[in-house]
Amino acid sequence: MLENTGRTELSSLGEFGLIKHLTQFVEIKNESSLKGVGDDAAVIDNKDKLTVVSTDMLVEGIHFDLSYVPLKHLGYKAVNVNVSDIYAMNAIPKQITISIAVSNRFSVESVEELYSGMMLACHKHKVDIVGGDTTSSKSGLIISITVIGEAKAEELVYRNGAKEGDLLCVTGDLGAAYVGLQLLEREKQIFMESPGVQPDLEGNDYILERQLKPEARKDIPVLLEKLEVKPTAMIDISDGLASEILHLCTQSETGCNLYEEKIPIDPLTYTVAREFNLDPTVCALSGGEDYELLFTIDQSDFPKIKANPDITVIGHMTNKKDGINLITKGGSSTPLTAQGWDALLKKD
Amino acid sequence: MLENTGRTELSSLGEFGLIKHLTQFVEIKNESSLKGVGDDAAVIDNKDKLTVVSTDMLVEGIHFDLSYVPLKHLGYKAVNVNVSDIYAMNAIPKQITISIAVSNRFSVESVEELYSGMMLACHKHKVDIVGGDTTSSKSGLIISITVIGEAKAEELVYRNGAKEGDLLCVTGDLGAAYVGLQLLEREKQIFMESPGVQPDLEGNDYILERQLKPEARKDIPVLLEKLEVKPTAMIDISDGLASEILHLCTQSETGCNLYEEKIPIDPLTYTVAREFNLDPTVCALSGGEDYELLFTIDQSDFPKIKANPDITVIGHMTNKKDGINLITKGGSSTPLTAQGWDALLKKD
Repeated sequence: MLENTGRTELSSLGEFGLIKHLTQFVEIKNESSLKGVGDDAAVIDNKDKLTVVSTDMLVEGIHFDLSYVPLKHLGYKAVNVNVSDIYAMNAIPKQITISIAVSNRFSVESVEELYSGMMLACHKHKVDIVGGDTTSSKSGLIISITVIGEAKAEELVYRNGAKEGDLLCVTGDLGAAYVGLQLLEREKQIFMESPGVQPDLEGNDYILERQLKPEARKDIPVLLEKLEVKPTAMIDISDGLASEILHLCTQSETGCNLYEEKIPIDPLTYTVAREFNLDPTVCALSGGEDYELLFTIDQSDFPKIKANPDITVIGHMTNKKDGINLITKGGSSTPLTAQGWDALLKKD
Repeated sequence: MLENTGRTELSSLGEFGLIKHLTQFVEIKNESSLKGVGDDAAVIDNKDKLTVVSTDMLVEGIHFDLSYVPLKHLGYKAVNVNVSDIYAMNAIPKQITISIAVSNRFSVESVEELYSGMMLACHKHKVDIVGGDTTSSKSGLIISITVIGEAKAEELVYRNGAKEGDLLCVTGDLGAAYVGLQLLEREKQIFMESPGVQPDLEGNDYILERQLKPEARKDIPVLLEKLEVKPTAMIDISDGLASEILHLCTQSETGCNLYEEKIPIDPLTYTVAREFNLDPTVCALSGGEDYELLFTIDQSDFPKIKANPDITVIGHMTNKKDGINLITKGGSSTPLTAQGWDALLKKD
């Protein structure tokens, strides 16, 4: 089935490609496995309630750079990134397991710092740490987290329920975490070249916090319930708006029109992106790490959400054959692609 | 609470010490979190059935050496190590999430090899792969697995239920995986010194399989149900018999008398241990990686298990004040300690 026929570089598949490639032969056999690979979280049937499970691995040098990320923030973020996947199912996180591999470059105190950030986030999200593993690593720090949540069957929202005519909504604002990362990278470069120079991060608190201390949208499932709106599809924004829209459309078998002018971008994000010669729209589309929720609702639910300052309608779902398009501020339509960070960095 | 007051080396705490240290302030708040850190798996209440969750991380260079472990075997073992924790709760594994970090030293084919071993084990244990994460690593391979199982509340067996007078039982035989590792290490050394020499592993299939391809005891919860025996406490043997007995006694607040002559050791394990100048009893006590189940039963259940060739009574639980002792073949009593591998390797 999986035959060894030579050497294919991992880079030729990419992360999503590799997951898809590896899981192509995975079959679901247990009656209780309602949903497997392919959504924000897996879903397990316990008759009375459903269990929702999501897992994530963070690797030093790949997902974080300890030269500018304090360990406590890293721990806080690692938990938020994971619970965000549970909220994206319209479920409530309840338990978490935390596995950590550390080299002896780290002291007990530094692991405590990391753990204290994790505990702070768990406290905030009312999540119990119920297990985990700590082990040695030959190099660097690796964090692997699994979150378990619960929901009633009728509350759960998958990625595949959007239909033609649904409104595409997003919470909060986008692109700030990516612009915050640019600031941190710039200050790191300056520091490496002139170690005496103090970092100039003043006035940029908002975008730095969005990068270093993201807050998963715990409030949104509660708000939606209060507004009596059940999204038709939902996903959290970890890889960038464009990539997440493509996931929703692919899994729901719809097209989409996204309106550039509607994308919520904070004024500070806008200004600092411009300083870096970056297009703020591209930062929102491809920057990622916003951990906002992207969801679709039936048009008839529009009156219920329109007055809410935390939810913005940014487009609508179309027929699959009409494609997935960005309608620019100038009014032209261009196919939306998941450009990723490479495209961003190459921008002049 | 966790104050940063200097540098403490991780090695000063050890793995169990670090887990204990980090989790000392962890509180359980959700009603559904029945059992948190400290058993083979966490337990979550879903009213109708309980969900059991266990997680493990395996790091290249720490837990495995790819110079003599084929990737497919590694994948098979990684899954078995994890489902073993679920069986040790007398529960049935149902779902699994698999996260992998790989450096670009690995090809897609090699990751497929690893994954095919994982899928084979999942198939054998009727476990569904429902999620996971794949990511890059700067160096080496890291595997993090979370298994989710189920059980009825009345079926679940914890580590803390043993009482004075209970019989201490173990499945299968012990020490083989450790002796198998010595063989593999020796052949690796010979190969490194004389690359032309073919490895001499003939006739040692059993102990090599115990190291490379351990089988979690899927059959035992089923057998116990058939025999109408519910253990009072249970744990799986990953770190060695001595370490696991200490866990059972500490958590159950009992003492124990373990009889050296009763410890089941395969004749091949015995012979090869002697070749390496190792005491076979010490291999069983401290070698680990056997993935057999160690459990205690009420004395009244003895008739039900005594005829079973797969279960050996190796001792009995005593009052806490009598301590945890090994009764040697010579009849003397010596306190049992978790010596770990260092002690083994230093043996003359």
